[in-house]
Amino acid sequence: MKPEMPWGGGRILELDTEECWELMGGRETGRVGWGGPEGQTIHPVNHAVGNGAVWLRTTAYSSLAREADESPVAFQVDDIDDVTRAGWSVLVRGTAHLTWPGEAARDLPELEPWVEGLRPVWVQIRPTAVTGRRLLPR
Amino acid sequence: MKPEMPWGGGRILELDTEECWELMGGRETGRVGWGGPEGQTIHPVNHAVGNGAVWLRTTAYSSLAREADESPVAFQVDDIDDVTRAGWSVLVRGTAHLTWPGEAARDLPELEPWVEGLRPVWVQIRPTAVTGRRLLPR
Repeated sequence: MKPEMPWGGGRILELDTEECWELMGGRETGRVGWGGPEGQTIHPVNHAVGNGAVWLRTTAYSSLAREADESPVAFQVDDIDDVTRAGWSVLVRGTAHLTWPGEAARDLPELEPWVEGLRPVWVQIRPTAVTGRRLLPR
Repeated sequence: MKPEMPWGGGRILELDTEECWELMGGRETGRVGWGGPEGQTIHPVNHAVGNGAVWLRTTAYSSLAREADESPVAFQVDDIDDVTRAGWSVLVRGTAHLTWPGEAARDLPELEPWVEGLRPVWVQIRPTAVTGRRLLPR
């Protein structure tokens, strides 16, 4: 083992649920994670927040559309500064509910995909838990 | 459904493995994802790259230490710009191998935890697949 300075990092504060939603809504991109046949996956995606859920859009043939419908997923947003080594992270755990083209969908938020190509599948992440942490500067 | 502009986003390019490692090594933080008893989890963490693996440090009582040893995990690093809506993301899939205090460990990289508290557990993510994508500006 190398010599080390194990106590040197910043302090962690837990965020309340309201602050988690506010921080998530203030960023345009996050990451969706799930377990599929190829193992654990984390993909970046632009998102919207609305009606107590997180919304994504995807193609009909994406791994997300093929593997995650009605499955447990995580959605994570963070903003961490490399210089101050401080920032925050919000984690939404829940189930992905997909709306395919032609299916009736209600309460869809404004959400323009950042990636080219037809992305007609809406992914609604219905949260079972929303948690967050702030890392304070040293 | 709202009126929409489905073809408007940026183009995606696949990255080769060498470029993925280079990009990962150039950032200090990423996110580790796994499936545990509380569902899917994604946690931000500072990392090092060395000997063909990704290395993290954690506490002995963290959910990562309790749930992910010898389990499938994902490690993801990205850098996406909200203004240009362009950037990149690298995904490592593999297995987490934990080294507990007192166990012999070889080839540990330099890695100072960003979070306070004793973090004596080393997490080595041994990759089975390394993939990445670049999102070009529109």
